[in-house]
Amino acid sequence: MNKGTLMVVSGFSGTGKGTVLAQVFQRRPDVYFSVSFTTRSPREGEREGVDYHFITRQAFEERIQRGEFLEYAEYVGNYYGTSLKVIQEKLAQGIDVILEIEIQGAAKVRERMPEAVSLFLVPPSFEELSRRLHKRGTDSEEVIQQRLATARREAKEMVNYDYIVVNDTVEQAVGEILAILVAESCRRERRRDLIEGVNGL
Amino acid sequence: MNKGTLMVVSGFSGTGKGTVLAQVFQRRPDVYFSVSFTTRSPREGEREGVDYHFITRQAFEERIQRGEFLEYAEYVGNYYGTSLKVIQEKLAQGIDVILEIEIQGAAKVRERMPEAVSLFLVPPSFEELSRRLHKRGTDSEEVIQQRLATARREAKEMVNYDYIVVNDTVEQAVGEILAILVAESCRRERRRDLIEGVNGL
Repeated sequence: MNKGTLMVVSGFSGTGKGTVLAQVFQRRPDVYFSVSFTTRSPREGEREGVDYHFITRQAFEERIQRGEFLEYAEYVGNYYGTSLKVIQEKLAQGIDVILEIEIQGAAKVRERMPEAVSLFLVPPSFEELSRRLHKRGTDSEEVIQQRLATARREAKEMVNYDYIVVNDTVEQAVGEILAILVAESCRRERRRDLIEGVNGL
Repeated sequence: MNKGTLMVVSGFSGTGKGTVLAQVFQRRPDVYFSVSFTTRSPREGEREGVDYHFITRQAFEERIQRGEFLEYAEYVGNYYGTSLKVIQEKLAQGIDVILEIEIQGAAKVRERMPEAVSLFLVPPSFEELSRRLHKRGTDSEEVIQQRLATARREAKEMVNYDYIVVNDTVEQAVGEILAILVAESCRRERRRDLIEGVNGL
């Protein structure tokens, strides 16, 4: 049995990660989407166990103590964390796992699981990102400006990712992510049983 | 402008490389299929510039002198070679290049162009390979046994390739190769202008 691929996905706020990944999931329901734990409050429409596992600050800190997180971080006053155990189980079963995570978290995952594949989703331009953030209509102008400033800072980290996908149209971005999942499953490192099988004959 | 991907494809004789690559070309006519130079005479039905570039021994040796070959070899008294110049031109124009080449040639390409991506196409099993070679009906039993022995030897080289694609069905193998081409175009190394563009803004 070959291990699944762990794909770590990051991107600026407002790039459209949610929309793109929802379609990837529709097209590849066999892929497990890691659900993060967080202490922040659910936004409208967000569901427990689907968007996040929403837990209290105390419960989160207990999990930290027990070493249950592959990574965790505090971001704008709230904790976000990823369960190491769940991911390891899925990968061992040959299931691909997608983990949507911000940049510092991704760096920690790369450090602890160097076999992870990382992908950065970018908007076609900062002008387009600004347009999308305004269109979303969920943030004040001040918050939008903060998000844009953060994005410009975060752009410097793109060089640490294996793949860069431009979210020009959702369809094209989804197609590229699906292609990367297929390509990664063909990597020599993930075909060890095949190589051994052929050579053993 | 981002450079194209050079994809080197090898596989055992009888795996179905020709059929698979013909369909890749149909689906991706924008990809350049490298045409080898040779000093042997055209066989019936072979066309200049499609099957090979047919040139004289003198012209071939002049090209060797000018260092124009990425790799070349002499087989049964004839030269066969891959033009470095043509490939570099295509890659510089952002065009992906596929180069079908046997194992020793692939090793030379990897050495001289480490950025090349290499892919090994394998049959689902040696039993299936034997069945396909018999079905093809072009070789005597002795030649088939030689080809199978060569395949068993060549299988040891699979570990040097980046990707292993199983030719289970043509459609699936073609799909995987197309996915690898897309995925490779998303690799950070090939998105340098994008990264610089975003960071320069």
